[in-house]
Amino acid sequence: MFSKDVHSFFRSPVREIFKRVDLNAIYSFAGGYPSADTFPLEDIRQIMARVIDKYQGKAFQYGATQGVMELREEVARRYGVPVERVQITSSSQQGIDVCTRILVNPGDVILTSSPSYLGALQSFRSYRADIRGVAHQKDADAFRDAYVGALEQVKAEGKQVKFLYMIPDFQNPSGESLTLQERQILVELAARYDFLIVEDSPYRELRYEGEHIPTMYSLSPDRVIHLGSFSKIFAPGFRLGWAIAHPDILDKIYVCKQSLDLCPPIFDQYVAAEFLRSGKLDANLLKSIELYKGKRDLLLSLLEEYMPEGVSWTHPEGGLFLFLTMPEDFDAVRFYDTALDAGVAYVAGEFFHPDGSGKNTMRMNFSFMTHERIKEGVILLASLLSS
Amino acid sequence: MFSKDVHSFFRSPVREIFKRVDLNAIYSFAGGYPSADTFPLEDIRQIMARVIDKYQGKAFQYGATQGVMELREEVARRYGVPVERVQITSSSQQGIDVCTRILVNPGDVILTSSPSYLGALQSFRSYRADIRGVAHQKDADAFRDAYVGALEQVKAEGKQVKFLYMIPDFQNPSGESLTLQERQILVELAARYDFLIVEDSPYRELRYEGEHIPTMYSLSPDRVIHLGSFSKIFAPGFRLGWAIAHPDILDKIYVCKQSLDLCPPIFDQYVAAEFLRSGKLDANLLKSIELYKGKRDLLLSLLEEYMPEGVSWTHPEGGLFLFLTMPEDFDAVRFYDTALDAGVAYVAGEFFHPDGSGKNTMRMNFSFMTHERIKEGVILLASLLSS
Repeated sequence: MFSKDVHSFFRSPVREIFKRVDLNAIYSFAGGYPSADTFPLEDIRQIMARVIDKYQGKAFQYGATQGVMELREEVARRYGVPVERVQITSSSQQGIDVCTRILVNPGDVILTSSPSYLGALQSFRSYRADIRGVAHQKDADAFRDAYVGALEQVKAEGKQVKFLYMIPDFQNPSGESLTLQERQILVELAARYDFLIVEDSPYRELRYEGEHIPTMYSLSPDRVIHLGSFSKIFAPGFRLGWAIAHPDILDKIYVCKQSLDLCPPIFDQYVAAEFLRSGKLDANLLKSIELYKGKRDLLLSLLEEYMPEGVSWTHPEGGLFLFLTMPEDFDAVRFYDTALDAGVAYVAGEFFHPDGSGKNTMRMNFSFMTHERIKEGVILLASLLSS
Repeated sequence: MFSKDVHSFFRSPVREIFKRVDLNAIYSFAGGYPSADTFPLEDIRQIMARVIDKYQGKAFQYGATQGVMELREEVARRYGVPVERVQITSSSQQGIDVCTRILVNPGDVILTSSPSYLGALQSFRSYRADIRGVAHQKDADAFRDAYVGALEQVKAEGKQVKFLYMIPDFQNPSGESLTLQERQILVELAARYDFLIVEDSPYRELRYEGEHIPTMYSLSPDRVIHLGSFSKIFAPGFRLGWAIAHPDILDKIYVCKQSLDLCPPIFDQYVAAEFLRSGKLDANLLKSIELYKGKRDLLLSLLEEYMPEGVSWTHPEGGLFLFLTMPEDFDAVRFYDTALDAGVAYVAGEFFHPDGSGKNTMRMNFSFMTHERIKEGVILLASLLSS
């Protein structure tokens, strides 16, 4: 009855991991959940009452496929772009999925970093895209060479890259960011080889140190589709994000959204618009940044203190994740059962690598657990890795 | 840059119609909007406050891909099915789209009635399905023969029907329902020819006369995917619906939802669950039924009074629409500009016919406008049709 075979990936251990994990019963570095402490419940309560008063039935009726104008205007103002370039999405995950749906035919090439966001790879695979991952190079010349190499390879095969998918800010899973120079290189290559860039940046505003780096969108507004999300700066339960792009691209997304879900949730959009407009988002963001910075610093110092020789990790300047690299012969997928039985969870890095490499890596989230539980979890994980 | 050509359908006048229509400036029989008078604003206000108190941060965190358990349990109770058979969807439109995505490869056959729901046809086309419409036959034997004929035709072509898409209750656009016998025929054919049925039933609870007819799901729980929606019995702004199906099918939907949008909006789901649990949905439904019955009766009597000779229409026992048939040589698409210029809108029936037939038909909605505006709109439309 089911003839599609494209979803075999979803039978991977990833899914089982998330099905088995009870987030409160174990030490979970696995998910990408923000801390519920950052949700401004009192603000939300007041804003909701205000939205009902102000919009009455309109807040619960069908709305525009592009999103409600009030929210599009707030996002446009925040990014300094015309409102015609803003589409509200029902989650930033939907933004990824919709981009793939409008741009990719089976067999088309999507280029991305390796590692890259698991949920994006799942979406790409479901459309039978040919995913090419490029390992990160520290040096700018090597970085350029690696991408040029991949692009030339695709060209030599008579194919064309449909888009490059990147998470330039505090990447999921690595926690690392692209430098300005690296962004410029990618934007230049997009023009030279004629492809689009999907810039997925849900963590951008969660910077704990260093300077903000311009978006790739700002470097090339007509070639870059910028995806953002309220999940990490407001609350994920609203399932709201946005896409900023050339109107011709948004036109395609509009059409796709019509057959997908008609429009994003209306009441939730008015609440988000009011949260932005009132300045409460910015106030709340400062609190979130302080909270997460503390957790990141704690995790970094605990890893330093407890991790055995041969384990290294990234030092993210923002976001929710860092990435661990174990000795070459370590297998994080195989080790997972041991860890889970002992009561600690992570996501094996292999799942973030399009070619299944990275077996000796794992992603650790630091946003969700309390300080106390982060400490107990690291000590437990470190003792398991040592033995 | 855009190589996909599957969306050419969306360039049709339908889209332009909806872009041009300001619902308050004209007499609109075009949309499928429920009346905002049916939205229980006071209940919603109270329930929202209660949900924040009860669930706190949990109401704004990520949640289960299947939907929150509280809402799945309420839907399961309402339908008398195990909770394992309930998936919450981010709108019933998403339910249609997801079913197509998990079941249909390009070129696969989807069978449906002709006319059928426009938004479903859009979704089917975007997956490059081969859509076969079967015209409705009044007599049960002719009904069976028509579907057997279509199925044998598909078989003779060496193809297989992936699913049959039907709106058995107060169909969009015709407003008509399938009899019990017709439902039984389709379910028997599904077993004999080995296909699934997607039963889309967003209007089922809006019955203004006659007896409820069993769902096709109840006749064949393992072959039918039943799709429902809160849009017409609560409020569309929440964008919430459900799919009821065999767990093996829900398993595929789960996987698809993961790469689509991870989970439906959480807070909205708790609000809907509480609305159901408290019994307020049923109380509100009675009010909605009374309101819509009055509008339907009014529209029927106005058509009787004002429509010129040669125009006929359906007599729906529920739902939001009825369907007009004009003389053979009438073209509702061509007539649309005249109507809109004069200030009245409808949707041309042609767009609901997979093969582009039905040029002399139109869909009229009666849920959205006030009695006064329905009357003025019918008089205007009738005078245009007469001249």
